[in-house]
Amino acid sequence: MLALAGYPLGLQFRFFDPTPNAPAGQLAEQIVADYADQAALERFARGADVVTYEFENVPVETAQWLEQFAPVYPPPAALHTAQDRLNEKTLFQQLGLLTPPFAPVNTAQELQAAVEKIGLPAVLKTRRLGYDGKGQFVLKTPEDLAAAWQTLGGAPLVLESFVAFEREISVLAVRNREGATAFYPLVENQHAEGILRLSQPSGNSSLLQFSAEEFAQRILNSLNYVGLLAIEFFEKDGQLLANEMAPRVHNSGHWTIEGAETSQFENHLRAVLGWPLGPTHLRGHAAMLNLIGELPDVEQILAIPNAHLHLYGKTPRAGRKLGHITVREPEKEMMQSKLKLLQKIVEKGASVGGKP
Amino acid sequence: MLALAGYPLGLQFRFFDPTPNAPAGQLAEQIVADYADQAALERFARGADVVTYEFENVPVETAQWLEQFAPVYPPPAALHTAQDRLNEKTLFQQLGLLTPPFAPVNTAQELQAAVEKIGLPAVLKTRRLGYDGKGQFVLKTPEDLAAAWQTLGGAPLVLESFVAFEREISVLAVRNREGATAFYPLVENQHAEGILRLSQPSGNSSLLQFSAEEFAQRILNSLNYVGLLAIEFFEKDGQLLANEMAPRVHNSGHWTIEGAETSQFENHLRAVLGWPLGPTHLRGHAAMLNLIGELPDVEQILAIPNAHLHLYGKTPRAGRKLGHITVREPEKEMMQSKLKLLQKIVEKGASVGGKP
Repeated sequence: MLALAGYPLGLQFRFFDPTPNAPAGQLAEQIVADYADQAALERFARGADVVTYEFENVPVETAQWLEQFAPVYPPPAALHTAQDRLNEKTLFQQLGLLTPPFAPVNTAQELQAAVEKIGLPAVLKTRRLGYDGKGQFVLKTPEDLAAAWQTLGGAPLVLESFVAFEREISVLAVRNREGATAFYPLVENQHAEGILRLSQPSGNSSLLQFSAEEFAQRILNSLNYVGLLAIEFFEKDGQLLANEMAPRVHNSGHWTIEGAETSQFENHLRAVLGWPLGPTHLRGHAAMLNLIGELPDVEQILAIPNAHLHLYGKTPRAGRKLGHITVREPEKEMMQSKLKLLQKIVEKGASVGGKP
Repeated sequence: MLALAGYPLGLQFRFFDPTPNAPAGQLAEQIVADYADQAALERFARGADVVTYEFENVPVETAQWLEQFAPVYPPPAALHTAQDRLNEKTLFQQLGLLTPPFAPVNTAQELQAAVEKIGLPAVLKTRRLGYDGKGQFVLKTPEDLAAAWQTLGGAPLVLESFVAFEREISVLAVRNREGATAFYPLVENQHAEGILRLSQPSGNSSLLQFSAEEFAQRILNSLNYVGLLAIEFFEKDGQLLANEMAPRVHNSGHWTIEGAETSQFENHLRAVLGWPLGPTHLRGHAAMLNLIGELPDVEQILAIPNAHLHLYGKTPRAGRKLGHITVREPEKEMMQSKLKLLQKIVEKGASVGGKP
């Protein structure tokens, strides 16, 4: 989606992905190699004006090594922070953001101590490499500790209080090389089985929007960030608790292709190139529905007026994000009605809703 | 732009272009060969679900030959008609559309007779292969006949009355394999030096819109057309005179990427695949400005909020269409103001306006 947004701006692309036949390889040369293969990395980056990434588990060492060939944005330091839940939450705290209570866990004893400090229910998470609900264990009673340790023990962990939040919200912030910033309207997200299902730019109070932008601005500044940054919050009792951040274009911003004046993809490219950012305001009412695990009937989707289909060219597999649909309507009620219809078609009865 | 619209629909592409390094070649395999190279054509079309084109001078024989491998849309018969101004205008007449008076011209004597019949001013045009004002000669006085014949004589020609029209208007019509049709709002076009400069979906009276759709429907039906068809009209005294048609996505429809709910590119693909067509209604007020001959300063353009840049990856050359900018605004006045600003930046004083 970055490349599709970039070609009209006159950009050319080269991709690096360890997996052969990655979807992006349809759109330009793909270099297939390990992240540690320096010769391949050089072949990839040599001659580029800028290097960026849209996968937060790119090794920090790889991102740093590439800096000898071209500027790498978002800065590898942001990648370093975002790859470790403990570093990330510590940064949030240092910058004065509220977070759910948390504690590092490296041993079974520390787990015991962390539970005593934070209370139950709580979520034990690996500090690194978790996504889509993987690497997490929900602790409801003291009896769950042994199983949780059995499952995750050994890796560096963090225990977080389980927040009975009202909503999950994300803000998409973007900062360019000159330090100019822009923020998209807050997005309300719904997950199921740890995977994002539905994102909607929400009718949040302007106070929440203001708070989220203020928090995002602090993070952008502290990291001297360049590019698009997504920050996920829990909303509870009118407050935003910072949960995590992603130093890349984000699934909860895919609706911006049709739903905002400038898509997150175009704004990310503008940012890393040092170009002026585009307006982030809404165009009508929009919502985005992820296509997980199996592909829908294309014609059935396209028969719904104002439903916009985006497939990623991936092979279907359980739990895999294969695409998304954005519905955009001038009137909110009609948007909601069509969204319900699309959910019915796409999810075939699978549960969608708040956190379990 | 077709490929950029098609990837999100899950489509894959292969391109055929006699010119090496055509812009589309960045986006997928490009086969470079002559239109008569049957082995190359087979390599191109073998295994495809459908073949389409976005250049109206593809030889009809090539389009027909490809039909043994896959359906070819728009139908080669439409290409055949559109490639010859005389056939095209004759079809318009047969279907009851008004046209400027015209007459075939094959000899200097016939030119003399045609001028006597039609009167002056008039435009002498080659029947085939003219575009962007090439292959045309404006006759103002009887003294111009010799020079016109000197310039164009030899090729099959057509003389057309020079219409002192009020506006140039196009309609973008689309028909899918099931015969479903959709029509975009009428577009008002401004040319300079024979090249399209500016297109705006206009606030035309609903009667004009109705007439244009009715005319387009007749043409679509008569050709059993599949895909997007552009028809250009002159508006004079409240009537539409059919000037020409293009059996492809059209420059006067490029604004649909941001300005309509479904772009002409996506609807063309949906049509040739037999998929449901998408809504064609406007999203706000939009206008499209062509970038001719030289590239603008990208940052200067992107600094204008709601200006959307589209570059085609072509090498600059005098008179060449290198890209376009679409400006889209909720309010018409603001759109017009920004359009003026963009024109100032882009055209650096070059004249834009009605027909000379």
